[in-house]
Amino acid sequence: MYVRNAWYVAGWASEFDDNLKRVTVLEEHLVMYRIDAHTVIALEDRCPHRLMPLSKGKRIGNDIQCGYHGMTFNCEGACVRVPGQENIPASAFVHAYPVKQKNDIVFIWMGDHEQMNEDLIFDMPEFNSENWHVHQGDALHLKANYLNVAENLVDPAHVSFVHPTTLGNAASENVPVHVDTQGEVLVAWRWIRNAEPVGFFQKFGNFNGHVDRWHYYYLHLPSIAVIDFGSAAVELNLKEEERDHGVRIFALHFLTPVNQHYTIDRWMHIRNTALNDESASEQMDAMFRVAFAEDKAILEAIEEQEKLPQKRKPIRLAIDKGPTVYRRRIRDMADQENTDVADEPVRSSFIYHE
Amino acid sequence: MYVRNAWYVAGWASEFDDNLKRVTVLEEHLVMYRIDAHTVIALEDRCPHRLMPLSKGKRIGNDIQCGYHGMTFNCEGACVRVPGQENIPASAFVHAYPVKQKNDIVFIWMGDHEQMNEDLIFDMPEFNSENWHVHQGDALHLKANYLNVAENLVDPAHVSFVHPTTLGNAASENVPVHVDTQGEVLVAWRWIRNAEPVGFFQKFGNFNGHVDRWHYYYLHLPSIAVIDFGSAAVELNLKEEERDHGVRIFALHFLTPVNQHYTIDRWMHIRNTALNDESASEQMDAMFRVAFAEDKAILEAIEEQEKLPQKRKPIRLAIDKGPTVYRRRIRDMADQENTDVADEPVRSSFIYHE
Amino acid sequence: MYVRNAWYVAGWASEFDDNLKRVTVLEEHLVMYRIDAHTVIALEDRCPHRLMPLSKGKRIGNDIQCGYHGMTFNCEGACVRVPGQENIPASAFVHAYPVKQKNDIVFIWMGDHEQMNEDLIFDMPEFNSENWHVHQGDALHLKANYLNVAENLVDPAHVSFVHPTTLGNAASENVPVHVDTQGEVLVAWRWIRNAEPVGFFQKFGNFNGHVDRWHYYYLHLPSIAVIDFGSAAVELNLKEEERDHGVRIFALHFLTPVNQHYTIDRWMHIRNTALNDESASEQMDAMFRVAFAEDKAILEAIEEQEKLPQKRKPIRLAIDKGPTVYRRRIRDMADQENTDVADEPVRSSFIYHE
Repeated sequence: MYVRNAWYVAGWASEFDDNLKRVTVLEEHLVMYRIDAHTVIALEDRCPHRLMPLSKGKRIGNDIQCGYHGMTFNCEGACVRVPGQENIPASAFVHAYPVKQKNDIVFIWMGDHEQMNEDLIFDMPEFNSENWHVHQGDALHLKANYLNVAENLVDPAHVSFVHPTTLGNAASENVPVHVDTQGEVLVAWRWIRNAEPVGFFQKFGNFNGHVDRWHYYYLHLPSIAVIDFGSAAVELNLKEEERDHGVRIFALHFLTPVNQHYTIDRWMHIRNTALNDESASEQMDAMFRVAFAEDKAILEAIEEQEKLPQKRKPIRLAIDKGPTVYRRRIRDMADQENTDVADEPVRSSFIYHE
Repeated sequence: MYVRNAWYVAGWASEFDDNLKRVTVLEEHLVMYRIDAHTVIALEDRCPHRLMPLSKGKRIGNDIQCGYHGMTFNCEGACVRVPGQENIPASAFVHAYPVKQKNDIVFIWMGDHEQMNEDLIFDMPEFNSENWHVHQGDALHLKANYLNVAENLVDPAHVSFVHPTTLGNAASENVPVHVDTQGEVLVAWRWIRNAEPVGFFQKFGNFNGHVDRWHYYYLHLPSIAVIDFGSAAVELNLKEEERDHGVRIFALHFLTPVNQHYTIDRWMHIRNTALNDESASEQMDAMFRVAFAEDKAILEAIEEQEKLPQKRKPIRLAIDKGPTVYRRRIRDMADQENTDVADEPVRSSFIYHE
Repeated sequence: MYVRNAWYVAGWASEFDDNLKRVTVLEEHLVMYRIDAHTVIALEDRCPHRLMPLSKGKRIGNDIQCGYHGMTFNCEGACVRVPGQENIPASAFVHAYPVKQKNDIVFIWMGDHEQMNEDLIFDMPEFNSENWHVHQGDALHLKANYLNVAENLVDPAHVSFVHPTTLGNAASENVPVHVDTQGEVLVAWRWIRNAEPVGFFQKFGNFNGHVDRWHYYYLHLPSIAVIDFGSAAVELNLKEEERDHGVRIFALHFLTPVNQHYTIDRWMHIRNTALNDESASEQMDAMFRVAFAEDKAILEAIEEQEKLPQKRKPIRLAIDKGPTVYRRRIRDMADQENTDVADEPVRSSFIYHE
């Protein structure tokens, strides 16, 4: 089950250069390559003649020549040469996919071309603000269905148990989770007031004593998550709308469903502390890596379990509200796409500063 | 096809300690752990919430806390905590399996709890006799169906061809095999009179000249085998019921069906020679390892062959009487369990000294 | 889809000795072994008793004794011994396959014994002529269907793109391909006149300047290919029937379909240059290895692509005439075998010198 009318992340801008690269999104194999600093091309990675992946061919200027019999395609997917004959058959083409590079991230549109809208590409103003530091992290490869990965990103309750040394601690175990839906964005959040700082903020906050801390999980349908988390000294008695006055970090997760059993999670962060301090970026990445390896272990174990025959239906708990709403929305969106009625596609921009 | 109303071996007692261990029996994943010197716990290894294996969680005293959202289960499988809510749903439980440790072996009951009977746990008096030396060997992992493995343990005829350096030799090739059924135990046996000792007894018998030797294969349904084998100087003219006067060894095989294509054979022996001589135990284990590796090669090759399309039905020979009876009994037992009529379960104790 | 009434290559003569060897042809597992310098035996590699591969048994003279219970079979597949009983059941046999060794190549007949005809075994007079040097190369194992592999051997058009450093160059890219059918042999060919020599003949032809060069792809149905290729100085203005006056090489490919996804291509060559020069043979093998590794990369990539769901039918081009005819003929031959009408089998001999 996939939502097709959406911008997915095909990679960081730095992942694309002159070379032909196979990329797989929603089970479709694409050949991608860069033709200038701002432009990346994505074509169907399958020669229509003998099915040879074009990514194993070679570039002739901005075109690709198939490595088997030399059929050549341009950036729009049109065939421009068939060796051994003059005419070019009407069926000699490959699909071309809309691609946009924004904030050093390469987005691809996997759905109906008529519904494609560049305004829907994910963005947030902190990408281009001098008060915020933007840092690309890495790509986590998970042998897991993207719905389970996304669910984990709208689920504050797991943090106390899965990430006890970095992002959570026992103080939050029983704090209730709030969930709300704001257009195409689900939000699940909780505040933990007057508690010890978690490992992450022991390191980066310079706090002497208890803090108020928060997690806001914003899940932009279908598969981009922004986790707004931070801490402030308890004396500040910070209000919800004053989070910028604390140490505040946006952890971004761009999920790319490769197939039903494989997902890539490209993660990065934007922070209002340690601006331009690359050693802080590296230390944060190190802590994120610890936490995300913990998520990966959980999600891959669940993937294996889901393959087994099930005698009983899983039970749902109070903490599952976010995941439950998420799955229902995805199902509705996928169902809608499978009807003939053209519908407004998914909007990914959102205001984090109320 | 499995018989469920039976005690299977989950492991040697030494395999279980404080740690959570996943064990798989009859395709069911269990989490097992020791709570005292005599008691091992076995629970369904699947949290009812998000299917997370509990074996990846952690112990809180004698309870297990799930590693994903902290649901906690006690030794009976009852849920004792759901973080984030007060009430505990009725469906918040995992199955608990009866487990008994006896003779330093951990047995598990995989069937109907109402039919469970501790008296049926496999035992033989030699486990606790000063005239016998008990030695646990090792676990042989076979990529083979347990029926084929068990069949090999009620089949004296293969020994001449598969184990020519250890347990058999050419003298036995044409000696007929006797088969009998004694309650829940099948017996197949043959005597080879006045022949050279086999490799095993050349090493451990100190024989100068020909011997009388015997193999009795006792198969306790569904999957525990006792192979009573030994030799005596030909001059003794040993009678069947006098086997204790010769050098006599019981090789025990506890088969655990993991799934239809994987079986664990835990093997050990009990002997009336070289009492308390651990170097003899090690030398015997070394010979057993040679022989069991030969069986493993055969049984895994057959497993591969059975996956192929078959144009002809296999033929049955005179030597197949034991295996044929065995398969018929297992089929009957499995069929019976699938009816509603409750029936007396499998009895595994047996007297080896007539 | 296989053609069964044909002689396939089971191996070079040098691949068979006293030892029992499993060989798989058309998904059938065979045990093969040599009994004298001219005679190789092939039996069904499956004991009819417990399915044990006979190749894991041992030779008793020219017979094979199964490694499990000692059933013994002679070279005709008849059972000659069943340990433990006097009578031999009627179903105690294994299939025996006709095998012929010719020109140091071992051929096997996989079809109806009544249609077997030794005159149909592939041959060409150059195997036994003092004007030609015969050199066996190697075996290329491909994870690819044999039809795709064979198609590549009746397809001169790929050479310019796949083998630019050895067998082709850009001069041939647009030269038309001729295709003809001569009985059970398909021929596809092209001449490239007045062009630079390709890598292979730069090395082996001692040419100073342009050459005329040719490729003739003879595909003997179902799966033996002879590629007649060569070059001659352009001044000679060589006619088609005068190819022996140039430097001429026959590259032979004996394809053995192992299963639908695995093919062995045993390759060798016969040449009219550098007679008895083994260092030339080695250098040619080195160039062939480069070229065939290029084919393997292509064919295995296509095999992977063919497993994917296909939204569009592949398109056919002018250069596809050879492959198209080939597939139609194979389909006709396989269809015919599946009818009850006995039909004349495939003839593999052919005259290369018009």
